[in-house]
Amino acid sequence: MSDEKKIPYKIYLEENEMPDSWYNVRADMKNKPAPLLNPGTLKPLTFEEMRGIFCDELCRQELDDTTAYFEIPEEIRKFYKMYRPSPLVRAYCLEEKLQTPAKIYYKFEGNNTSGSHKLNSAIAQAYYAKKQGLKGVTTETGAGQWGTALSMACAYLGLDCQVYMVKCSYEQKPFRREVMRTYGANVTPSPSDTTEVGRKILKEFPGTTGSLGCAISEAVEAATAQEGYRYVLGSVLTQVLLHQSVIGLEAKAAMDKYGIKPDMIIGCAGGGSNLGGLISPFMGEKLRGEADYRFIAVEPASCPSLTRGKYVYDFCDTGKVCPLAKMYTLGSGFMPAPNHAGGLRYHGMSSVLSQLYDDGYMEAVSVEQTSVFKAAQEFARVEGILPAPESSHAIKVAIDEALKCKETGEEKTILFGLTGTGYFDMVAYGRFNDGEMSDYIPTDEDLAKGLAGIPKFPGNEI
Amino acid sequence: MSDEKKIPYKIYLEENEMPDSWYNVRADMKNKPAPLLNPGTLKPLTFEEMRGIFCDELCRQELDDTTAYFEIPEEIRKFYKMYRPSPLVRAYCLEEKLQTPAKIYYKFEGNNTSGSHKLNSAIAQAYYAKKQGLKGVTTETGAGQWGTALSMACAYLGLDCQVYMVKCSYEQKPFRREVMRTYGANVTPSPSDTTEVGRKILKEFPGTTGSLGCAISEAVEAATAQEGYRYVLGSVLTQVLLHQSVIGLEAKAAMDKYGIKPDMIIGCAGGGSNLGGLISPFMGEKLRGEADYRFIAVEPASCPSLTRGKYVYDFCDTGKVCPLAKMYTLGSGFMPAPNHAGGLRYHGMSSVLSQLYDDGYMEAVSVEQTSVFKAAQEFARVEGILPAPESSHAIKVAIDEALKCKETGEEKTILFGLTGTGYFDMVAYGRFNDGEMSDYIPTDEDLAKGLAGIPKFPGNEI
Repeated sequence: MSDEKKIPYKIYLEENEMPDSWYNVRADMKNKPAPLLNPGTLKPLTFEEMRGIFCDELCRQELDDTTAYFEIPEEIRKFYKMYRPSPLVRAYCLEEKLQTPAKIYYKFEGNNTSGSHKLNSAIAQAYYAKKQGLKGVTTETGAGQWGTALSMACAYLGLDCQVYMVKCSYEQKPFRREVMRTYGANVTPSPSDTTEVGRKILKEFPGTTGSLGCAISEAVEAATAQEGYRYVLGSVLTQVLLHQSVIGLEAKAAMDKYGIKPDMIIGCAGGGSNLGGLISPFMGEKLRGEADYRFIAVEPASCPSLTRGKYVYDFCDTGKVCPLAKMYTLGSGFMPAPNHAGGLRYHGMSSVLSQLYDDGYMEAVSVEQTSVFKAAQEFARVEGILPAPESSHAIKVAIDEALKCKETGEEKTILFGLTGTGYFDMVAYGRFNDGEMSDYIPTDEDLAKGLAGIPKFPGNEI
Repeated sequence: MSDEKKIPYKIYLEENEMPDSWYNVRADMKNKPAPLLNPGTLKPLTFEEMRGIFCDELCRQELDDTTAYFEIPEEIRKFYKMYRPSPLVRAYCLEEKLQTPAKIYYKFEGNNTSGSHKLNSAIAQAYYAKKQGLKGVTTETGAGQWGTALSMACAYLGLDCQVYMVKCSYEQKPFRREVMRTYGANVTPSPSDTTEVGRKILKEFPGTTGSLGCAISEAVEAATAQEGYRYVLGSVLTQVLLHQSVIGLEAKAAMDKYGIKPDMIIGCAGGGSNLGGLISPFMGEKLRGEADYRFIAVEPASCPSLTRGKYVYDFCDTGKVCPLAKMYTLGSGFMPAPNHAGGLRYHGMSSVLSQLYDDGYMEAVSVEQTSVFKAAQEFARVEGILPAPESSHAIKVAIDEALKCKETGEEKTILFGLTGTGYFDMVAYGRFNDGEMSDYIPTDEDLAKGLAGIPKFPGNEI
């Protein structure tokens, strides 16, 4: 155990040890993720079709499944140095509390004002827009992490930022909204009368409090309607996983520095940006046959795309304005029951992760939210960080695995992603503290309704 | 400028470089801070008189003005390792934005869930209570930073924590309250019917929303009324400054490591815990004649204890249940006009800092809140951290000093304390974003009212 002594509570890389390239895990996948399809032609989306929505360099990144490394531009590396490297934390206090022989590590992405890992891709997407000479970007946000991250990136680069925020969140999470406004973003509650699609929805459903699907539709319309604007998205896309690989690359470098090899890597999975980023370099080793790891995706029981969804082509948004992606999906019309982990309420899953899961490289489990908040509270009390509900899904499973080690006596090494903090989620914690939180598991009939909306065409049968 | 290149954006100490002792600046002061007085006898408070309120070891620390170093107990060092060392950040992005030749550094204490430096003393006070075999501690909290920090420390040590939270904050800041509850604290809105003094106040002022003074009175009563409980306080006391010296010791060690010598050290000052902690080791050098630094205390124009108060004995609390302290004070009955930096709304100032200021070792300036929020926003946009309103007072003056360097061309090195984050202060940011924030400067008559309440006895004339 004398080796143990040498491992500090927190491992920080030196600046010169920080990654200078992002890693594109698709390059090492034998079965490549299926391409995005044009919903009109059902043919793979071309660069030309894509560039009206996304800026050019991001289209290239989205389409490239063979280049293993993309150099991180100097300007982005500079921004990363402002809030990165994020610490790799040895959870000594949690281990002691659990009395487990397991060694638990977590990569903590919450030490920046956006409160999550989203900033890693926000700065990249804003940078390429700026470099292309664009005036601004548009996006949607639900709970607000992504909108906040993008606002911060745009403020730094002097780029206009227009955020369509789901109306109920806009009203219920005024503090998130104010953070975005403090960073100079223009935040519009969605649906709004600033877009055609918004006006149409408002006319049809006068009292609606909005949805992510509607906000996406408005943001895409706003981008295409304004000269010099493009749309950006915080998850699901493969370009986002590419940028988020900085999480895994840093984690791996920190572990390598101390000769630590994780037995299992655990992350929460909504659209897949955090999990995909965290596991990328480790998965690369597994794909190349250089090492073996267990990968565990954790999703909420209320929105179980990997564990109960189908692997087919589907719309990425409820409004059906976006291209089709092949992914594990519950159907773009699936309405997840209320769950406080807003970032995990997405009907689909990154096509990269979907393919890896389908090929058996990754496991998935679903957990219920009261057990997640119980784990969150236990973690907060001994590790001093109040975690986001999303991140707490990973904590729950990490604790479960550590307790299994306690039973078996195995000294396994667990790495999990702690994507962010829960400072803007205190309404949820309050409900938990008051014992008023419940669990929701969709019935087979609930699922059938969502799956029924999946587009049908030859080769795309459920 | 090649030397510059070597200084990273963030300097983290290694675990073995972290301080193993706190530094007691009083040991190096020629003019010692005046002792606390028993308000009944007007004689210095003895250990025996004090130990009914504070636990024994803390009484010893409070009274000891000759021992320069107090070893940090192993258990506290372990807890410190969980969230410390805090980064010393080189504000490259801010420097670039300001186009200043000044070199700006800040010691960032906000990367823990309490959101501020308060945790440094909370764990120490909770530890000594636990070690003495006590069951729990009581305290008051206004905005909630201190209450949160104490809740975290108590949760970690398994100590009961009773927080009296000023009623208007309890209602207006439900999220802070929920953080404390998540950490297992018992949070009571003050005034309450759980104490005699609370019941008395409620009877006299049925609709009152409480005050810090009243909450202190309730917390002190609760501590003395329950077997195995003591009262703890988050600022003002010299024991608190002792624990907070860890901020300055880390900052100095980090600067020494890179051969950096600050020309000036800036901090916000409410009760003085952060500023006193940050400057301690540097002030020690100045007091011993080993080095010279400028020290600047920044206070809100609405509550200007150093710049417009009197240096006399006064009550530490509005309820007048606490001992008398000699300090710069506006009078314990002074009611500061609304200011969003709740942590700086205190009528007095640490007796250590008061003495140093009176002896000319330290300067003080006061600033108005709209200018503070303007600086906060500018800082947030380039440095990626949304600062607490309190901390932003230091930012404001650091920016002012950096701009002076721009005029003169001097390459001064500025160090300031960034005590915490503003994630629970978004109501204030919202008012600023909406252009609805105003400034309040007390008139001479306003001040005269507060000063009139200062106790009068021989040698204590204004």
